[in-house]
Amino acid sequence: MSPEQKQALYDYLSTFATENKRRKIEQVLVHRTRYLTVVLEDIYQPQNASAVVRSCECFGIQDLHVIENRNRFAVKVGVTQGAAKWIDIHRYHRPGQNSTRDCLQTLREQGYRLIATTPHRGDTTPDELPLAGKMALMFGTEELGLSEEALNLADEFLRIPMYGFTESFNLSVSVAICLYALVHRLADSGIDWHLSPEEKIDIRLNWIKKIIPRGETLERAFLQKMQNRSPDEPA
Amino acid sequence: MSPEQKQALYDYLSTFATENKRRKIEQVLVHRTRYLTVVLEDIYQPQNASAVVRSCECFGIQDLHVIENRNRFAVKVGVTQGAAKWIDIHRYHRPGQNSTRDCLQTLREQGYRLIATTPHRGDTTPDELPLAGKMALMFGTEELGLSEEALNLADEFLRIPMYGFTESFNLSVSVAICLYALVHRLADSGIDWHLSPEEKIDIRLNWIKKIIPRGETLERAFLQKMQNRSPDEPA
Repeated sequence: MSPEQKQALYDYLSTFATENKRRKIEQVLVHRTRYLTVVLEDIYQPQNASAVVRSCECFGIQDLHVIENRNRFAVKVGVTQGAAKWIDIHRYHRPGQNSTRDCLQTLREQGYRLIATTPHRGDTTPDELPLAGKMALMFGTEELGLSEEALNLADEFLRIPMYGFTESFNLSVSVAICLYALVHRLADSGIDWHLSPEEKIDIRLNWIKKIIPRGETLERAFLQKMQNRSPDEPA
Repeated sequence: MSPEQKQALYDYLSTFATENKRRKIEQVLVHRTRYLTVVLEDIYQPQNASAVVRSCECFGIQDLHVIENRNRFAVKVGVTQGAAKWIDIHRYHRPGQNSTRDCLQTLREQGYRLIATTPHRGDTTPDELPLAGKMALMFGTEELGLSEEALNLADEFLRIPMYGFTESFNLSVSVAICLYALVHRLADSGIDWHLSPEEKIDIRLNWIKKIIPRGETLERAFLQKMQNRSPDEPA
């Protein structure tokens, strides 16, 4: 579909949504970003996975990348509070292959800095991390952290300051602290971290289908009608 | 025991600890605080409880207050990473009585501002909350938040900014975000949030007993020896 057709479809579907819902979509879109994204490598506690999904949604992070080499990513619906349907979860899992490399190379090609979070290496904290350049924050499994593969492919290292005897924060807590610090610093910076108009059209359309009852059915009916229309007829 | 006797006991016990361990105790003590404390009301997910214990320890929060009206507070040892033994967990549970009032009145008498966290009331965010005056941050159950009782007794309200469709963060995530913001703001403020020398003596002694093997046994032997010594003999 062309951007114009997508817009026409959105306009049609949005007539089935309340004014409040349409306004909410626009409010959320203003704060949405792909400048900052989160990569989870082999997380296995559904409680943690769910809390991360929820934090990403709350902080306006549109993309979550999930690497599944050994562990499958599963969320607990009660814990996510339905957050999973508002963000894009990208899964990397090819049986017999290392999906870490696959994911990280994809992100690098998209222009992301690969930032490994670890208590053991690197001196940069979330308050100090340079903001110039899109950031992919990588988090590893609950006990062992990121794999050697992920650490080797990383461009930078990030460490959350800690003041006690305990060696590290809970995984979902680490993600939230990094996002809190970086989202607020980005908001105060001059950097344009917003979605492009084209991205907004896609996401807006995706959301409206989830908000209205029978969204998918209405979409099919509209597309059918567009196809049957003569090419000269105005949209 | 007098502060001098406690110090003598510490000096004795610390001879059984490595130089590294003694240094670690002092490093952690420097960042320890009772200026900021956390109150949990009727948390029932052990995963959340455990992550909060761990976050408090990592952020240098010495006291955690736990209200148990309907739910018992239980932690998962694997998730806490042993953090529970380094902080003081104060439990409020009297069968048939409202322990919320009990806990909050105790804290108010100790000079704490009672700050209720809720997405629904109050406009102050963790970045804006005034820092003057000791703070007790109150968090309620996973689904319903704080009780009416707790909200009525609160002096102030605190809200974490959110930018998505989801209504609230995961509980342990909320605690961590508030602590992260406030601990860092306190560090940069001129406020003296450190423990008093007397508090440090007590906590130092408590920790050394947990760090060395057979700490409790060695303590009993030392106290016995002190008791048997003549009053004029130098300590």
